Amino acid sequence: MDGSEQLSKRQLQAMRTRENLLNAGREVFLENGFQKATMTQINKLAHTGYGTAYVYFKNKDELFTELMETIMKKMYDVAGLPFKPRTKEEAFAQILKQTRLFMQSALEEKEMMKVVKEAIGVSPIVEEKWNHIRARFIGGITKDIQFVQEAGLANEKFDASLIAKGWFYMNEQVMWELVLGEIEENLDAVSENLAELYTGGLYK
Amino acid sequence: MDGSEQLSKRQLQAMRTRENLLNAGREVFLENGFQKATMTQINKLAHTGYGTAYVYFKNKDELFTELMETIMKKMYDVAGLPFKPRTKEEAFAQILKQTRLFMQSALEEKEMMKVVKEAIGVSPIVEEKWNHIRARFIGGITKDIQFVQEAGLANEKFDASLIAKGWFYMNEQVMWELVLGEIEENLDAVSENLAELYTGGLYK
Repeated sequence: MDGSEQLSKRQLQAMRTRENLLNAGREVFLENGFQKATMTQINKLAHTGYGTAYVYFKNKDELFTELMETIMKKMYDVAGLPFKPRTKEEAFAQILKQTRLFMQSALEEKEMMKVVKEAIGVSPIVEEKWNHIRARFIGGITKDIQFVQEAGLANEKFDASLIAKGWFYMNEQVMWELVLGEIEENLDAVSENLAELYTGGLYK
Repeated sequence: MDGSEQLSKRQLQAMRTRENLLNAGREVFLENGFQKATMTQINKLAHTGYGTAYVYFKNKDELFTELMETIMKKMYDVAGLPFKPRTKEEAFAQILKQTRLFMQSALEEKEMMKVVKEAIGVSPIVEEKWNHIRARFIGGITKDIQFVQEAGLANEKFDASLIAKGWFYMNEQVMWELVLGEIEENLDAVSENLAELYTGGLYK
């Protein structure tokens, strides 16, 4: 065994502790919500020594944003699918699929998304993280719009970045209402309505 | 003089005091933001006796929601204009006008709207008020959509209430970005982009 392998074992242990803390954090946030959750509760549930959570995360807000990354990963994957439609119909089919998967992924993590909603309202760190997440989605949508504009499928008159924002916000707010149970969970109808409005407006 | 006239004078005085408190509240909120503002500061600026503000308003949150009503009134007026278009073009012209006036009204009250945004995030009372405001706008838009669907101008396949939500949220978020200075203040371009996307998608 050489030094690098020993270091790697220690790193592996650190990774496991970090993973334990994240799993415990998830449970604590689900149980207590964001505001009532404490690092002490997380440490306790993870069976790590007193204060260990602070070695890995600056505060509960930072730990929480890590959990957000994991939740959003599925949604990013959906948003990041290659988007090279050759016709309006192809574009519609893919946009419909993306919209549906976006809503579905949020609903699969319904309880955690409720905590995310709460946390955005009270933690500037979480709010900033959410704004980064938004920017990432909006950046991707902007590129998709530019592609179809250059391909002659979508109207050139539109400001791609503004339309991307409008479209994302529409999806985001409807997603929150689904998560909070404020609109009926009919994913097919919801996604079709939104995708039809958007594609009908943007495409030639 | 009879009793009713005396009562009316007292009522008039009460109305003036209330008005003073609201004006003072506006100044204090603009100066300190929502969280740092106190009823004591408002009382002091209004030159009303100690504790008078609490006679008229339960707390600063309630006083603030009154101020929000006033700010939103102009926007409600815009949203409440009769909407009976006979063609897609007429509909577009009116939607464009409404969108522009909505953004413009918010920008005319830019500093107060920044405080509103802050207050929504920290006060459940203000958040609830904002949700009522949203519901009022969305209710109006839903009726407009139903009208044009019945008139055969817009596609019947759309769920009027869901589309109304999507459209309002798109406008709301873009409005916040304008208020917070996150997008360029080009009201014509912004309103045209949004109105074209929406009308293009919804109308036949």
